Amino acid sequence: MSSSHPVQQATPSSQPTPERIFELINAYQDSAALKAGTELDLFTAIGEGNQDPASIARRCKASERGIRILCDYLTIAGLLTKKDSRYGLAPDAAMFLDRRSPASMASLPGFLLLPALTNAFQDLATVVRKGRTVMSDAGTLGPEDPIWVEFARNMAPLMTFSAELIADLLKASERKKWKVLDIAASHGLFGITLARHNPNAEIVAVDWANVLQVAKENAAAAGIAGRYRTLPGSAFDVDYGAGYDVVLLTNFLHHFDMPTCETLLRKVYAALSPGGRAVALEFVPNEDRISPPIAAKFSMIMLGTTPSGDAYTHSQYQSMFRNAGFKSCALHSLPIPEQIVVAEK
Amino acid sequence: MSSSHPVQQATPSSQPTPERIFELINAYQDSAALKAGTELDLFTAIGEGNQDPASIARRCKASERGIRILCDYLTIAGLLTKKDSRYGLAPDAAMFLDRRSPASMASLPGFLLLPALTNAFQDLATVVRKGRTVMSDAGTLGPEDPIWVEFARNMAPLMTFSAELIADLLKASERKKWKVLDIAASHGLFGITLARHNPNAEIVAVDWANVLQVAKENAAAAGIAGRYRTLPGSAFDVDYGAGYDVVLLTNFLHHFDMPTCETLLRKVYAALSPGGRAVALEFVPNEDRISPPIAAKFSMIMLGTTPSGDAYTHSQYQSMFRNAGFKSCALHSLPIPEQIVVAEK
Repeated sequence: MSSSHPVQQATPSSQPTPERIFELINAYQDSAALKAGTELDLFTAIGEGNQDPASIARRCKASERGIRILCDYLTIAGLLTKKDSRYGLAPDAAMFLDRRSPASMASLPGFLLLPALTNAFQDLATVVRKGRTVMSDAGTLGPEDPIWVEFARNMAPLMTFSAELIADLLKASERKKWKVLDIAASHGLFGITLARHNPNAEIVAVDWANVLQVAKENAAAAGIAGRYRTLPGSAFDVDYGAGYDVVLLTNFLHHFDMPTCETLLRKVYAALSPGGRAVALEFVPNEDRISPPIAAKFSMIMLGTTPSGDAYTHSQYQSMFRNAGFKSCALHSLPIPEQIVVAEK
Repeated sequence: MSSSHPVQQATPSSQPTPERIFELINAYQDSAALKAGTELDLFTAIGEGNQDPASIARRCKASERGIRILCDYLTIAGLLTKKDSRYGLAPDAAMFLDRRSPASMASLPGFLLLPALTNAFQDLATVVRKGRTVMSDAGTLGPEDPIWVEFARNMAPLMTFSAELIADLLKASERKKWKVLDIAASHGLFGITLARHNPNAEIVAVDWANVLQVAKENAAAAGIAGRYRTLPGSAFDVDYGAGYDVVLLTNFLHHFDMPTCETLLRKVYAALSPGGRAVALEFVPNEDRISPPIAAKFSMIMLGTTPSGDAYTHSQYQSMFRNAGFKSCALHSLPIPEQIVVAEK
């Protein structure tokens, strides 16, 4: 038995190759592998010290063949390390996918990859032909769509960091009397975090009634229930009241077309005190609309799941806020894929 | 209206971020976008000179909103270029996705992303638990599974280049009398290409009867039907005959476990003349099993779609061929994701 030819590296070439196309064809397996990894709690298993396929398989109650192939795949994907057939957690996985980590978002892949959402991209050609979601008339925007209760329960861990960034940006702890309206409050963490930073803050949260149950639970757990009031219903229909210092619009405007956003922003403007601020947390691509990648790709999620939503650029937000009467609209970059738009009355 | 804060770049940081995890969660949209692009014939439309969203939308009979978002997405994915709101084809897309290109494989994403295949990864956690496909007992390996007729019809364009590489490697045109057995012939292109290079070659093709219809059509179209014979049935069961100079095993061994491969290779060995060669086209990862990425990730496709297949390393092929009696087993690298294993009797 001899190996008559040594292994040769394919010579790098500037010729087109189908490799990138194959990667894209099979990219859906990346999503499946990450989802399977979190469902099997593979990242926690490895974080606990199980390193070889047999030990990991025992801990995850799975087959050794399956674990070995999944671990190799997740290593190639950058979430695991491998040395001498032993696996470890890459830093991102140790921080965000090991359930023992305080920053764990291990439930997120399972939620974001529910068929209720992924089915929106099952026949994307039809979506592109029609120019809108084919899920239903309203996409995910129907009254009390249960997906938003799931969202509120699953996305909260991810939002803690963003909420702290907003509290810092608004210098929440330096404010005296402070009246905050939290539109599309979801889990409520944005308003609740401002209330935790400022004992004088009063929060009014708007969302569907079923979703507000989650926000109220979180407000009670944070010990600020006495300063937390809810307004159930559509943000377009409920009466906000007036005299707000801050109106939070977190991950909300992207669901709608620009005229609809302007209609809402006029209502927000009316509810603010003079000098008050509207604060939007958003995916804001650069003007080229192809960078940075996560913010720019967010348009696709809006195409698949809404009738007319989009990821808007800073100039588009400037236009919308200006048309609604605001005097300034500034963009603040954050060390996360989203940015903050602050508009002043 | 003023923009009081300039846009700041987020400072690069060595801290873990959830960005890679988000990319992986949403990776399934990469597959959906490529599939939609080919189904709408977007790449041909742009190749023909349609550059702005309105023109492309007219040509693809699609909405402008959908086309604009899809084109931005495919630009981020590296298949399109964008300048001043006008799109162009990146080199890989011009070569492989514009239907007017001789190397077009524009039908491939639609085929490889058929639900019949992608459903195998719908519940990957269960697959990993069981360590085998959950599609059915045999996965895609049941007798006359219609997927292989589709495979033969759709994958041929991609295989032309590999077939030429094999013909070169075997110096096909220099051979006198030449008897070639093409196991799992599929579209037949590997054997047919050898026959085109060598007018003395006789090809015997093995595959399911329904698949061999495609191979026979292709042999007739290539003008070599008179030197093309077929043996319908399972490669494990049919009588190959004897006296072969070459036995082709293209994209076949990876479907089975090592003992099953060895059983087949013993049969191949018996059918070869002394000095004859078995030639396998395969995804062969390095011994670390995590590089190069396309070959190493191929294990996952075998986990999802077969009871016990795998992407084998060179040392595993050496072990299998040696156990089957072969005297050498050499690996030849190609400028494609697959490599060629040549074993001599």
